[in-house]
Amino acid sequence: MLHFECDYTKGAHPAVLENLCADNLSSHPGYGSDVHCSRAAELILDECGLADGRVFFLSGGTQTNATVIDALLRPWQGVVCADSGHIAVHEAGAVEASGHKVITIASDDGKVSACSLRKMLESFYSDSTWPHMVIPGMVFLSHPTELGSLYSVRELKEISGICRQYSLPLYIDGARLIYGLASDETDVDLKAMAGIADVFYIGGTKAGCLFGEAIVCRNADLLPEFFTLIKQHGALLAKGWLLGLQFEALFTDGLYRAIGRNAIDMAMKLKEGFLSNGYRLHVDSPTNQQFVILPNEVVDRLMPDVGFSIWGERGERETIVRFVTDWSTRDEDVSALIAML
Amino acid sequence: MLHFECDYTKGAHPAVLENLCADNLSSHPGYGSDVHCSRAAELILDECGLADGRVFFLSGGTQTNATVIDALLRPWQGVVCADSGHIAVHEAGAVEASGHKVITIASDDGKVSACSLRKMLESFYSDSTWPHMVIPGMVFLSHPTELGSLYSVRELKEISGICRQYSLPLYIDGARLIYGLASDETDVDLKAMAGIADVFYIGGTKAGCLFGEAIVCRNADLLPEFFTLIKQHGALLAKGWLLGLQFEALFTDGLYRAIGRNAIDMAMKLKEGFLSNGYRLHVDSPTNQQFVILPNEVVDRLMPDVGFSIWGERGERETIVRFVTDWSTRDEDVSALIAML
Amino acid sequence: MLHFECDYTKGAHPAVLENLCADNLSSHPGYGSDVHCSRAAELILDECGLADGRVFFLSGGTQTNATVIDALLRPWQGVVCADSGHIAVHEAGAVEASGHKVITIASDDGKVSACSLRKMLESFYSDSTWPHMVIPGMVFLSHPTELGSLYSVRELKEISGICRQYSLPLYIDGARLIYGLASDETDVDLKAMAGIADVFYIGGTKAGCLFGEAIVCRNADLLPEFFTLIKQHGALLAKGWLLGLQFEALFTDGLYRAIGRNAIDMAMKLKEGFLSNGYRLHVDSPTNQQFVILPNEVVDRLMPDVGFSIWGERGERETIVRFVTDWSTRDEDVSALIAML
Amino acid sequence: MLHFECDYTKGAHPAVLENLCADNLSSHPGYGSDVHCSRAAELILDECGLADGRVFFLSGGTQTNATVIDALLRPWQGVVCADSGHIAVHEAGAVEASGHKVITIASDDGKVSACSLRKMLESFYSDSTWPHMVIPGMVFLSHPTELGSLYSVRELKEISGICRQYSLPLYIDGARLIYGLASDETDVDLKAMAGIADVFYIGGTKAGCLFGEAIVCRNADLLPEFFTLIKQHGALLAKGWLLGLQFEALFTDGLYRAIGRNAIDMAMKLKEGFLSNGYRLHVDSPTNQQFVILPNEVVDRLMPDVGFSIWGERGERETIVRFVTDWSTRDEDVSALIAML
Repeated sequence: MLHFECDYTKGAHPAVLENLCADNLSSHPGYGSDVHCSRAAELILDECGLADGRVFFLSGGTQTNATVIDALLRPWQGVVCADSGHIAVHEAGAVEASGHKVITIASDDGKVSACSLRKMLESFYSDSTWPHMVIPGMVFLSHPTELGSLYSVRELKEISGICRQYSLPLYIDGARLIYGLASDETDVDLKAMAGIADVFYIGGTKAGCLFGEAIVCRNADLLPEFFTLIKQHGALLAKGWLLGLQFEALFTDGLYRAIGRNAIDMAMKLKEGFLSNGYRLHVDSPTNQQFVILPNEVVDRLMPDVGFSIWGERGERETIVRFVTDWSTRDEDVSALIAML
Repeated sequence: MLHFECDYTKGAHPAVLENLCADNLSSHPGYGSDVHCSRAAELILDECGLADGRVFFLSGGTQTNATVIDALLRPWQGVVCADSGHIAVHEAGAVEASGHKVITIASDDGKVSACSLRKMLESFYSDSTWPHMVIPGMVFLSHPTELGSLYSVRELKEISGICRQYSLPLYIDGARLIYGLASDETDVDLKAMAGIADVFYIGGTKAGCLFGEAIVCRNADLLPEFFTLIKQHGALLAKGWLLGLQFEALFTDGLYRAIGRNAIDMAMKLKEGFLSNGYRLHVDSPTNQQFVILPNEVVDRLMPDVGFSIWGERGERETIVRFVTDWSTRDEDVSALIAML
Repeated sequence: MLHFECDYTKGAHPAVLENLCADNLSSHPGYGSDVHCSRAAELILDECGLADGRVFFLSGGTQTNATVIDALLRPWQGVVCADSGHIAVHEAGAVEASGHKVITIASDDGKVSACSLRKMLESFYSDSTWPHMVIPGMVFLSHPTELGSLYSVRELKEISGICRQYSLPLYIDGARLIYGLASDETDVDLKAMAGIADVFYIGGTKAGCLFGEAIVCRNADLLPEFFTLIKQHGALLAKGWLLGLQFEALFTDGLYRAIGRNAIDMAMKLKEGFLSNGYRLHVDSPTNQQFVILPNEVVDRLMPDVGFSIWGERGERETIVRFVTDWSTRDEDVSALIAML
Repeated sequence: MLHFECDYTKGAHPAVLENLCADNLSSHPGYGSDVHCSRAAELILDECGLADGRVFFLSGGTQTNATVIDALLRPWQGVVCADSGHIAVHEAGAVEASGHKVITIASDDGKVSACSLRKMLESFYSDSTWPHMVIPGMVFLSHPTELGSLYSVRELKEISGICRQYSLPLYIDGARLIYGLASDETDVDLKAMAGIADVFYIGGTKAGCLFGEAIVCRNADLLPEFFTLIKQHGALLAKGWLLGLQFEALFTDGLYRAIGRNAIDMAMKLKEGFLSNGYRLHVDSPTNQQFVILPNEVVDRLMPDVGFSIWGERGERETIVRFVTDWSTRDEDVSALIAML
């Protein structure tokens, strides 16, 4: 069986697991107050070029999004995102559960455009009934988006400019950040990200950790008493050092970049394989998620031997299919898949 | 100044106020446990033909919607409504504040169509990731809708059939119910409403009361410990008999119908006045809200002397404008407005 | 039947009702943006000596408490109050429903003492696990308390000093404020209250209005976008001018004080009546609530003719009973009650 | 340094880690739909003697409590627990964050007694104002409690009887369950627990896992759509099989019992050591947490070499100190500690 279902089908990258195992019988204070969390935070802030930043480690993406958004909003505010945004669709109402509306902006490619954001905000405040409505309180982006697309530094800066104009914190979900950073078609690196986003997170779960996401905050004042809020959201890992150990491994000896490199190389090879076999792309993604339009009979033929996701129907005879690569994708697996096409 | 801004610009219908004043110095037990609330509930259930129903009186529409929806949903569920639904737009996130997503269905005329509801539900459950999403838990309609449109009995029954199929309670917001019941173009009466909706409310605020809405519930089991939930939502009026007294007046000697009658007569006269003066309607509303397309210069001309609402722009030269009638609208005011056109 | 059950058994003081009725057929813009609300706010701020304050009118006490507390707290914070505090006991969990813990301090007389407040806060921060606990975020007092007791200016200032030290807004529930202000045993007047509390409310429901409470805020920055939050809590009255009209009446020609005066005179006469007949007080209340210890046979004897509340048992043979006076209590009713003892 | 701070200072029991590592490069479907979760659930249900039960795996205790409680309560209900209950004190308001009050019962030994529970419920419903208060909706116990105390089967059955009488689900927090089951002074085994509790959880984090708790539910109907609620609470681990793998190890070859055995043996040796050195116990705990009263100079002397928790002051010269053992506590460490006394 070849696995392209998603980027979290296996355990940890061996180097990450190694770091965990080597430390297994050491004793640590709990809840992230250990040396490994400190060290990992330092390594991350250093790569981000943030002297005064703060890092918080949580176990998973949904809890990370829910906790950050709960921290940044006041009760009368909602969070603005693309209509395909993970928080709008696939987090089972976690944002609403903490009392906040998710205010969506229509988007074809998974991105919020500066233009549509500005239009939405202008339109909101030009409606005299706005005080009866949920007030936009922050902006949520994903980089890469749910469709594998990427923002350019210029696009992020435009959005950030609008955010500043309306006093909206800008938060970026980086569940798959590494697969954006490693793309050949991006000018966004960690320093750019850290310079633009008020808060963002570096995904570990989809980047070779067993679990874990690292929230990076430019200015700790944005997240006051955040430890307590993490605890309240049930997102405070008792053995917090497990998160520190994994991110320490990720940010040592270039492992994080290497993981991204492999995934992108494999994804690009896969894309070329599809194109050279005459298939069309649903979107032209420069990252580790590839969305391809396949005739239904090809889908049926691949299914017994290849893991992938059905993204949706495309008329009666074709299906949009998603293939995902990660740190563990092997060249021979990609070749084998291409050979089946 | 002529007032067509909305149906709640004045105090109470004189007969309602009279009932309040006559009782002013009587002593009553609080919180709705008085004889006037009992009597009003009886009168309402009788008109609804509900032998086993229950009535609860609350002060306003937003708190009524929020409390009923909170009672009917479980934490993992959301409420389905039209994208123009009052709860989706103009209640400042009251539904989200109690933890629930508002799941919207696109609609041109303010109505949820049975077809779009069925499609949405089928599409939801055909997506294999549905357990990661907010689960539809009830359906919310308004009758009349925000655009003054009305459901037919057949349409309501179709929707109710889908609701039963998916075990979704059907709740109908009747803030302007009387202006639907009194319309010449409806087959929905209170008995039909009560026979189809699991819970609905009869608006008082917009129908000649100072304030007050009467929730009608076919089966009290649907709203267990509802008194306590009303209290928790801050929606339990201490001097609850004030609500009973007002609805008692409304449902005595045909006052409720008379109020509807006047508003519809005035609205229809207004509509004819617009049409006969060559103006187009934005929607052809059979109820007390009339949406007309007016040239901008007409809008400017009317503004100093007439109260109405700007609904939106229509190109560069025209504006969509809303005129609303109610129990207090006088024939001479409508004539005066028409004369100005 | 003599009525001493509570201070909200009748409609409105005739002068309040008169103001409502006289205006009944005038047209007003909704939601509190009318001239009567403006005028009433001015009158109140003037009496409070607050040049830069803000007033907001809501319908009832529970929604007022819930909305103010929701505005003042962040998600990780709770509200500190006496264990008998209304929000801790009798608001059906409205505070928790907006996500916040009510942190109680033991109290015999319904008051939070500065000493117990300081001890609680010191003890909280001296526990090294405090970041795992709900963080005290504001202090809630009632004046008068649930037991009719009153704070002195000195006591309030001590509490306020501790609040400032810990950056906790001080909020005072004044559902029965007038019956504190009118007491012969107080040095707290509206100016003192307004000078000490960050936010407080002047109860109307229990002071001769049909309904209505006036939130007074020293500094509008404390309650940003509060209009929207009021709407979200379902606490925004559509016909908001009804609140303005009532408070206008209350703060014209000394009506507010006169209402307090009558209630206190009647309560003191009642207290003397109990004492001179040899009954003991449960607490010695200087306000309109009198708590008396009565032999069970007296309780049984009074019950058919007198309305009062059973507060609790006191051993096997006695019961603690509450008698309440208000603006409508007549001298002859008090005399009649005393005659029955 | 000797470590007795708590039972989660180290990574995983070697056998648990081994199981994780051996599987590291296998591919699995996410979110708990894998074979290891199925197998672990089977092993657990088998030990519990539950043919129709359900098992859910979550990462940590606070999220487990918050999610189960959110599932079992309706909005107007609260959860009853001891005043020292973890949810009442040390979960940062997670229960309140989902809208529910924690209703506490005073307790000296960390246990809720059947007698105090019955009294509380009787007193609640005998107060005529109860519909204005948060309605008790479920009972929360910990076994062992925060103070290391244990319920007997008879005590649990008494409590469960009261719960049934009032239709309250009984939920038991088993963060340290193994250290109760392994105690020499208990008649509660997994089958008894499963036969009495409606829902309980088997703690993994404190029993040799890296993280993980297994919710056991007698009847899946009690937790409808629980998968979605887990997701909403941010408690759904993407690589869910990591939880299955760990519990599989725990419930294979008697590892779970062995872990309990070691901790109890070490705790009892420690207790004897304290007693034989003339120290008094704060409570006489039969489980892995030992609460001892030590002179302050002994506390100061031990501190540089031994990890333990300060539980509180005991007068001016003594301190209550907690020592905790677990699967990793070695006999020589206990001997070394005793030697220092």
